[in-house]
Amino acid sequence: MITTDICIIGAGPVGLFAVFEAGLLKMRCHLIDVLPQVGGQLSEIYPHKPIYDIPGYPTIRAQELIDNQMKQIEPFNPTFTLGERVEGLERQEDGSYVVVSSEGTRIHCQVVVIAGGLGCFEPRKPELANLVKYERKGVDYMVRNPETYRDKKIIIAGGGDSALDWTIYLADIAKEVTLIHRSDSFRGAPDSAEKVYHLAQKGAINLLLSHNLADVHGSDSLSHVIAVNKQKEEVKMEADYFIPLFGLTPKLGPIADWGLNIDKSAIVVNTVDYSTNIERIYAIGDINTYPGKLKLILCGYHEAALMAQSAFKYVYPDQKLSFKYTTVNGINTF
Amino acid sequence: MITTDICIIGAGPVGLFAVFEAGLLKMRCHLIDVLPQVGGQLSEIYPHKPIYDIPGYPTIRAQELIDNQMKQIEPFNPTFTLGERVEGLERQEDGSYVVVSSEGTRIHCQVVVIAGGLGCFEPRKPELANLVKYERKGVDYMVRNPETYRDKKIIIAGGGDSALDWTIYLADIAKEVTLIHRSDSFRGAPDSAEKVYHLAQKGAINLLLSHNLADVHGSDSLSHVIAVNKQKEEVKMEADYFIPLFGLTPKLGPIADWGLNIDKSAIVVNTVDYSTNIERIYAIGDINTYPGKLKLILCGYHEAALMAQSAFKYVYPDQKLSFKYTTVNGINTF
Repeated sequence: MITTDICIIGAGPVGLFAVFEAGLLKMRCHLIDVLPQVGGQLSEIYPHKPIYDIPGYPTIRAQELIDNQMKQIEPFNPTFTLGERVEGLERQEDGSYVVVSSEGTRIHCQVVVIAGGLGCFEPRKPELANLVKYERKGVDYMVRNPETYRDKKIIIAGGGDSALDWTIYLADIAKEVTLIHRSDSFRGAPDSAEKVYHLAQKGAINLLLSHNLADVHGSDSLSHVIAVNKQKEEVKMEADYFIPLFGLTPKLGPIADWGLNIDKSAIVVNTVDYSTNIERIYAIGDINTYPGKLKLILCGYHEAALMAQSAFKYVYPDQKLSFKYTTVNGINTF
Repeated sequence: MITTDICIIGAGPVGLFAVFEAGLLKMRCHLIDVLPQVGGQLSEIYPHKPIYDIPGYPTIRAQELIDNQMKQIEPFNPTFTLGERVEGLERQEDGSYVVVSSEGTRIHCQVVVIAGGLGCFEPRKPELANLVKYERKGVDYMVRNPETYRDKKIIIAGGGDSALDWTIYLADIAKEVTLIHRSDSFRGAPDSAEKVYHLAQKGAINLLLSHNLADVHGSDSLSHVIAVNKQKEEVKMEADYFIPLFGLTPKLGPIADWGLNIDKSAIVVNTVDYSTNIERIYAIGDINTYPGKLKLILCGYHEAALMAQSAFKYVYPDQKLSFKYTTVNGINTF
């Protein structure tokens, strides 16, 4: 059994910042995340993308923000359970909780903070007979490390920002990039679409518009992707990697069954302290909702700060909370 | 007459970030501040101090944060009126406003955002007969640039954090530092007090506890500070600079007369969009209050983001606001 003051579900930027705000008030945190690394969406989906709206950073790459936040919370020694999904929540007689993971890990805590972002992400997969057979053998649903594709033949499918952005990015890295899209126009940002058209014109990528995916083939690993045009004519293309980027479907997962007030897949909180309808359970970041809610990282930071002030009473029921500025007092660790 | 979309009163970190959030929605901003430079308290009172609770910065000096924020809003070309105090607010027939400064500058805008921090700061001055005579001639009420005091004899008075922190900081820079305090214990952080005691013990500073200030003397500029102990015995000390640090009294100033709901010198707002009781007037950052309010810079950033979404309807009454991520769309300037 792991014992902590606050169990934070989700180790994205908001969950990580909650460690800092809790730490200032001498509350210890344990974080649990279904992903194998910290950083949430930022590290998993767009580590190399610049973010422009983190206050004080004219621009910062997603992974760099996460790295900086990890450094910021280092003094407070957070502990982590990664690659495990939260399954259960057991209320104890004294009001405290035990959070239980998919692997049976048990975390005893006074307060539960759900910072689960958009939930557990699952990639939307095209319906192709042989697709699942080649997962991790040439079929990837997200780009984790662009270097994987250096000097390889890759085929990307999709018409949104991910498909456009990765096509542009990988054009410089891969031996050959083909982008397949079922329509003849893109849903993604117009200037990204412009860039893709331009790359295709100068022969830097292959662009197959108005083509539907038909299937994938190979032996031990993927070797070909097959697409068909509107006239049902088949195109069979060699590929080392096939990356269908049709987005991720966020799912709340087992948390949906905990009795929390849910509105359109988000947990309803109040804006005084971002607590939920269940005592000792808070929800911060993209997973919560309230009037005026914006799904911005910087809003989650604010929510984390107010949450910590409120959670203090459960961790230190006999102490009076005195609010202090770091500029005056610095950081005092445990 | 200056014409803009949003007039932001106060050019501290929160006012500056409001420019960014407004800019993303194509709203232009003009900022007005009574201080002669941007940055609010951070640049005026503690430019050299490290801040630890800006998300993503394990530590950053106050002035560096302001510099970075100025760079972040550069694409949106904000305009400034500095060194002028806001005096009047004139509502126009069409609902827009004209903000009027102490120097008669007039700013026409659709929306007014009050980001005035703790208000207009005025130093608390000890009641000494000759004090005002030596202002800017040896008497300083705040430390703007520590280098001013290099190799000088300085006398600091006060018992709070500012007095303690600057005593510690300037001990390394000044030729001689004397700290005078009327009591024998300090109000400031215990570990800062410890450091001051330690510096006094090893002779690095002079510490005069239980002494009251009596007066200051000099000719063209300050030369002496006189203090008395409980037995009314006088101590006359040479000084190049005398820095009484008895805190700053924030005053709301003329804004207090605009008909806004005020609670304990703060403007009451709702947390949906940080609007006040008067249409088209918002208040963000340390100057506002609501249940759960924390006077943290990071909270002001959040408030600025929600304000901008709401203000959009006054600037573009005929347009529908579509929320976009900078990571997807980048920054589009005017």
